[in-house]
Amino acid sequence: MKGKQLTRTKEACTESLKPIEDTLYVIGGKWKLRIIIALMDSGKRFNELQRSVSGISATVLSNELKELELNGFIERRILADSITTIYELTPYSHTLHDVIQSMNDWGKMH
Amino acid sequence: MKGKQLTRTKEACTESLKPIEDTLYVIGGKWKLRIIIALMDSGKRFNELQRSVSGISATVLSNELKELELNGFIERRILADSITTIYELTPYSHTLHDVIQSMNDWGKMH
Repeated sequence: MKGKQLTRTKEACTESLKPIEDTLYVIGGKWKLRIIIALMDSGKRFNELQRSVSGISATVLSNELKELELNGFIERRILADSITTIYELTPYSHTLHDVIQSMNDWGKMH
Repeated sequence: MKGKQLTRTKEACTESLKPIEDTLYVIGGKWKLRIIIALMDSGKRFNELQRSVSGISATVLSNELKELELNGFIERRILADSITTIYELTPYSHTLHDVIQSMNDWGKMH
């Protein structure tokens, strides 16, 4: 009986972790949220973005952008000159507002 | 003038990132939130905790616990037998409730 109860508790625990792990998976790590926040006021070219996110290397930024694009948070737009690429947030990325807000509130208080 | 404006924008951006970076610093990474969530229902011994957080090695768990203790999220309590150590959440860790809730909500929806 006790074993059964423990198994249930463990399942409930794993279950309750799942959405949080999903969230950490897509926005966890050192850079993703910082990139998203840097794009909040306006879309940016790669070099502009790299300057906004201080400390990030071009290689890391490039990889992070690919993952963020894959997960639907940002999109690339090519300007009329056919050369300039602008990185922008998708409407989907704004669903992260509450998460970012709560982290911001917590960080301010602590 | 434009340069000045850009500097201001960059400062504002760095400023607004700070609380979020602080939050990511203390609870970011693969394990910290998972450990906190595993301790939410009750305090646990090291081995119990390692079983609850599936996939974590003893070395990594030990290091993460040290950092979490240093940041005031968990505390060690030694039972009356003077041998058993229990890891528990501090009242301070409950201030993370809104952050965890918002990540949970987001993860469920997406």
